Amino acid sequence: MTHPIRIQVINGNTFAAMTQGIDESAQSARFPGTEIVTTQPQIGPQSIEGYYDEYLAIPGILETLILSESQFDAFIIACWGDPGVEAAREVTRKPVVGIAEASMYVANMVAARWGVVTTGHRILDMIEKTIHRTGFAHRCVSIRTTGLAVVETETARQATLDALEAVGRVAIAQDKAEALCLGCAGMSGLDHELEHRLGVPVIDAVAAAVKMAESLVSLKKQTSKALTYKSPELKPIQGYPSHMQPVNLQRDS
Amino acid sequence: MTHPIRIQVINGNTFAAMTQGIDESAQSARFPGTEIVTTQPQIGPQSIEGYYDEYLAIPGILETLILSESQFDAFIIACWGDPGVEAAREVTRKPVVGIAEASMYVANMVAARWGVVTTGHRILDMIEKTIHRTGFAHRCVSIRTTGLAVVETETARQATLDALEAVGRVAIAQDKAEALCLGCAGMSGLDHELEHRLGVPVIDAVAAAVKMAESLVSLKKQTSKALTYKSPELKPIQGYPSHMQPVNLQRDS
Amino acid sequence: MTHPIRIQVINGNTFAAMTQGIDESAQSARFPGTEIVTTQPQIGPQSIEGYYDEYLAIPGILETLILSESQFDAFIIACWGDPGVEAAREVTRKPVVGIAEASMYVANMVAARWGVVTTGHRILDMIEKTIHRTGFAHRCVSIRTTGLAVVETETARQATLDALEAVGRVAIAQDKAEALCLGCAGMSGLDHELEHRLGVPVIDAVAAAVKMAESLVSLKKQTSKALTYKSPELKPIQGYPSHMQPVNLQRDS
Amino acid sequence: MTHPIRIQVINGNTFAAMTQGIDESAQSARFPGTEIVTTQPQIGPQSIEGYYDEYLAIPGILETLILSESQFDAFIIACWGDPGVEAAREVTRKPVVGIAEASMYVANMVAARWGVVTTGHRILDMIEKTIHRTGFAHRCVSIRTTGLAVVETETARQATLDALEAVGRVAIAQDKAEALCLGCAGMSGLDHELEHRLGVPVIDAVAAAVKMAESLVSLKKQTSKALTYKSPELKPIQGYPSHMQPVNLQRDS
Amino acid sequence: MTHPIRIQVINGNTFAAMTQGIDESAQSARFPGTEIVTTQPQIGPQSIEGYYDEYLAIPGILETLILSESQFDAFIIACWGDPGVEAAREVTRKPVVGIAEASMYVANMVAARWGVVTTGHRILDMIEKTIHRTGFAHRCVSIRTTGLAVVETETARQATLDALEAVGRVAIAQDKAEALCLGCAGMSGLDHELEHRLGVPVIDAVAAAVKMAESLVSLKKQTSKALTYKSPELKPIQGYPSHMQPVNLQRDS
Amino acid sequence: MTHPIRIQVINGNTFAAMTQGIDESAQSARFPGTEIVTTQPQIGPQSIEGYYDEYLAIPGILETLILSESQFDAFIIACWGDPGVEAAREVTRKPVVGIAEASMYVANMVAARWGVVTTGHRILDMIEKTIHRTGFAHRCVSIRTTGLAVVETETARQATLDALEAVGRVAIAQDKAEALCLGCAGMSGLDHELEHRLGVPVIDAVAAAVKMAESLVSLKKQTSKALTYKSPELKPIQGYPSHMQPVNLQRDS
Repeated sequence: MTHPIRIQVINGNTFAAMTQGIDESAQSARFPGTEIVTTQPQIGPQSIEGYYDEYLAIPGILETLILSESQFDAFIIACWGDPGVEAAREVTRKPVVGIAEASMYVANMVAARWGVVTTGHRILDMIEKTIHRTGFAHRCVSIRTTGLAVVETETARQATLDALEAVGRVAIAQDKAEALCLGCAGMSGLDHELEHRLGVPVIDAVAAAVKMAESLVSLKKQTSKALTYKSPELKPIQGYPSHMQPVNLQRDS
Repeated sequence: MTHPIRIQVINGNTFAAMTQGIDESAQSARFPGTEIVTTQPQIGPQSIEGYYDEYLAIPGILETLILSESQFDAFIIACWGDPGVEAAREVTRKPVVGIAEASMYVANMVAARWGVVTTGHRILDMIEKTIHRTGFAHRCVSIRTTGLAVVETETARQATLDALEAVGRVAIAQDKAEALCLGCAGMSGLDHELEHRLGVPVIDAVAAAVKMAESLVSLKKQTSKALTYKSPELKPIQGYPSHMQPVNLQRDS
Repeated sequence: MTHPIRIQVINGNTFAAMTQGIDESAQSARFPGTEIVTTQPQIGPQSIEGYYDEYLAIPGILETLILSESQFDAFIIACWGDPGVEAAREVTRKPVVGIAEASMYVANMVAARWGVVTTGHRILDMIEKTIHRTGFAHRCVSIRTTGLAVVETETARQATLDALEAVGRVAIAQDKAEALCLGCAGMSGLDHELEHRLGVPVIDAVAAAVKMAESLVSLKKQTSKALTYKSPELKPIQGYPSHMQPVNLQRDS
Repeated sequence: MTHPIRIQVINGNTFAAMTQGIDESAQSARFPGTEIVTTQPQIGPQSIEGYYDEYLAIPGILETLILSESQFDAFIIACWGDPGVEAAREVTRKPVVGIAEASMYVANMVAARWGVVTTGHRILDMIEKTIHRTGFAHRCVSIRTTGLAVVETETARQATLDALEAVGRVAIAQDKAEALCLGCAGMSGLDHELEHRLGVPVIDAVAAAVKMAESLVSLKKQTSKALTYKSPELKPIQGYPSHMQPVNLQRDS
Repeated sequence: MTHPIRIQVINGNTFAAMTQGIDESAQSARFPGTEIVTTQPQIGPQSIEGYYDEYLAIPGILETLILSESQFDAFIIACWGDPGVEAAREVTRKPVVGIAEASMYVANMVAARWGVVTTGHRILDMIEKTIHRTGFAHRCVSIRTTGLAVVETETARQATLDALEAVGRVAIAQDKAEALCLGCAGMSGLDHELEHRLGVPVIDAVAAAVKMAESLVSLKKQTSKALTYKSPELKPIQGYPSHMQPVNLQRDS
Repeated sequence: MTHPIRIQVINGNTFAAMTQGIDESAQSARFPGTEIVTTQPQIGPQSIEGYYDEYLAIPGILETLILSESQFDAFIIACWGDPGVEAAREVTRKPVVGIAEASMYVANMVAARWGVVTTGHRILDMIEKTIHRTGFAHRCVSIRTTGLAVVETETARQATLDALEAVGRVAIAQDKAEALCLGCAGMSGLDHELEHRLGVPVIDAVAAAVKMAESLVSLKKQTSKALTYKSPELKPIQGYPSHMQPVNLQRDS
């Protein structure tokens, strides 16, 4: 590896304070030879707290990746739910990592049974679907929501810690969770304090994703272009800028 | 029911010929007391043939629904993959039906084992995920792709029929499928001819969705606003017009 | 459709008051161009409250369908558990709909997570198996039994409502159900009052099945005779009347 | 055990030659201290080859058990599909064993991966559902149908052997099955010759069920009357004889 | 069967009092024509209470079987978790039965929904994996741990009974379990007293396994040597005695 | 990180040439700040090609880890099947990574559908169980065995490459696999040449595990000692050396 590994971390939300929090986590987690730039989309919701938010966030996430595709070696989508990760894999050969999947892989390697602690009650279904889709319904024994807004995870750090501690205690005592994933990018950086309070591994999903991205780059593994993740088929896409048109995204050959 | 049931069918693709084909199917399937308007988004890909296309189609689909929410009693998202259907359920109380789920419900009621025949090879993973997510991995015994582009399903009807017949024969003989879902909105209207050729029920997903939408309106069942499908949380969404801002989408009370 | 859609609703139980209650629900749910006749078998248990009841009910259900097969366009088996629905599909080409599957399809279209509220505690296993078999173990998050006898659902309507409200509140608050299926044909007609009390969609399974049957007839979809649901193989069946002998049930050609 | 274990084997079919074949298998499999009586219902189809046949067979199976309940220590339902086994468990405390489940337990104990070879093509769905319901979708790697009628398994023994050998070879070579269950009671007695021809364990389901029934009696384990398998609730059952009325079937206390 | 069925029961633990308790259960369960010898490995943990214990127990279990392979007709591995059962099936053609699988088969035949009551809290994951692997995640509705050490199940019989009764009551009342498996070989012999206290079938796993082993021998079914359970491939195994070398274990021909 | 990350890679097999091949792969994959020592157990089979081999390998694997526990920051068990990984997590707080799980995580991040290509036909069941246990039955679409002995993967590199290419082509063309995991530690180092021949990502499981181990150490995540992976309970373990006795393995506090 003659040059550093360059990773772009894309906050799925358009909330600058959260982007900064994510960046701090990501920078703390990187190896010395890694450079990380954290950014946020130009368009999309301040925070992702439901399906509507999620789907309106994805075009901005994809555009962010597309505009800087040549400058990085790997990309991280920083929202627990991995919004748009399959589409991102179509528009680049370089590895794309979702923070949800990354945190679940880490949890699997340190605990037989784990849980997810997260924000608003309404996202229970989104969290469950993310876990099922990834394959870990049998490993995840607890999903506990705090009722916090995503924005509060940045603006009310102590209250967030206390709320996570409270639901975490239930996950451990009642559901027999042995590790916890922080199910929101806004909770990045709270893992060490929560580990201290709860006595079980707590996974910062952004940090986990940084390691997965470094790993893939170091292994020189790129996204398969064999079938599912081929470059988008050629066709006009109305209402999107030129740089998002398939004709400008061919990376199969 | 003193007024007609008014249904908006939203083509997930921005291809006018396809919108017209979908409309013909939808009009043929409606009950006399139903009015159907088929339309297509202002923004989005000409055709959906992968995850990138799908995610860029969703904002336009949602906008189309939002702009005419007050004028219809139910909404259909016409793309086999049901793009954005959960988000659409957040922005209205009125029923929203995906054509994939509708066609699978119909298939379940007429056959013990069924298959899906569809377009490009690369969407195999999308089709599988749609079926798994809906719950029918044990009922769907065959997914067969033709390699056709979505546009060809409109512009090359005879070739499309022949290709569907060919893969359909394999699905029936080899995989023991007893009915077939047409896994693309562009194939609407081909069901009767294919039934004639193949001798098993062939489900036109758009027609199936029209019946499901009529059913829900007639039953006066609306989307639950208890948790998952509550109106989007209040927050700014950058780069989207005013009519798409959560503050203008509150329908919980 | 030049003639009305004629649907026979077959109460799985031989309890006349229940047949009448089912008929009221069915008539309320039909489209203007639909004619519905509700009936009950000549033989079978007064109410189905276990596997023994269910299996003794099925021959009478099938006989009822066979005797009037030529007079209707579709058939509904009105017992949450869909007793004999696969066999019914063998003896006619015309659509056969079970009320359990119909109500679950409707629930899926209006809620991300739903539950079933029903009668006696002992049928928990039957209800679970019905849900698993249909494919919705991941969507149904709650099964709550009231301990009511089936007959009481007709003879003690207020007590039934109160009992359903009580378990419904637990399903919503504790299990996070966002809609409820009424898991017994005897509960038909209670959906609107329960919706009012509980604030979530409540599905009357009989009404849901009427819409599914109308849909299938309107779509001109008939049961596949390709393999599983072919007419019964020719053979004598001892102890059953002539009209139930396979030789008189051939409808494949 | 001061008296012999008395087991009734109930052929699910009303075909006397088959009852005799089943009896021969059962007698060969019993321990010296076991007495076996094989019988067939008074009513029901000559052979079970679909859902219609199966459901019309169940009342006769149950009646047969009820009429001799006091004379035996355990009961076997001899039809691969285990028709009515849950209902049978409601009407007696004594163990009831289905031959399908018994054969699958045996297969699990002698092979990592096994298959089922059976009769008509149309029962593929029934066989699959039986396996799924029992819990062995991950162990059963092959279902191969011969197209034989059930009656032929008795009247054309050599042809049956040859057909089973042919599909068995495919199951072993192509699907990597390491043992085979004979998926029809009519195939009883063919296991040894097929083992000789194919070189893998072949399970005679009737023989397997005899051992399971002996085991349960010897262990003094009876059917749980805690919830699901309680005696049928009291109610009239129209069109069935007095001895089949719930009031005469109480065995909970 | 001209000679008695000879079964070796191998306690997975090296605790003599437990071996004696297992032997008493096994002797009580055998048919008159069966001879049982219960033994314990020369090497391995006093008790199996976690994965480390389990994996260190397996070589001793296998050695015990190998050393007496020619003297018995079948083998039972007596530890709920079935340690090494697949490997044991490679080193002999004779049937090998795990007590966990045997007890679950029995539970399935007497109850629709059952639970497991067992020792230390930490083995929850092991118990779950054993159930999933066998295929009964849908049948097992309760796993309740007492916190007892395995040794206590022998040395403190009354306390063990009381603890099992306590968790058993929760399994029945709260989880709706209708039968219980004793999830530890050390609990052998407590089934009758617990049945008396709890009113549901309680399965002694050792006794269940004796019946399964007798069944397989009587059926003359041996382990398939077609693929997975072939004799170990020829190779040196360092640090193990000559009698455990593959060259001395060939039993395929 | 002031000192290098020290990782021990434990070959599950006792074949020195294979240990060397594994070491080459591991050294190639490490970051500059990582030190790797590859070793092999003192006891155990030359190669793992079945369950017997696997279970006899585990004590030696665990002993190797225990003897050097204090000298490393993380441990890798290098055998596709992850033998003993749960037990290893009991005897140390430091991360333990199995190469099978690691390779599957990498495959998931670069391909929607992937396969495993491996050695002897008989291990099909072991490979399937490993995939199911980890949670990826829905992602792994192909398992293809070459029939090669494990030793041949080292001694016949060109033949191994050709055999893997042959089965890999089938996995890609027929099963639609889009990436391949090398399902044997002996295949380490062949990934680049196979990628070149096949055109899809090929995952070297040892290399993947090195990245996962580095990741966990860098994240300062250690194995949860909350429940399942607590230190082994105190008890004597007969026939094992003092350093393997639980009393000398306490790491919970």
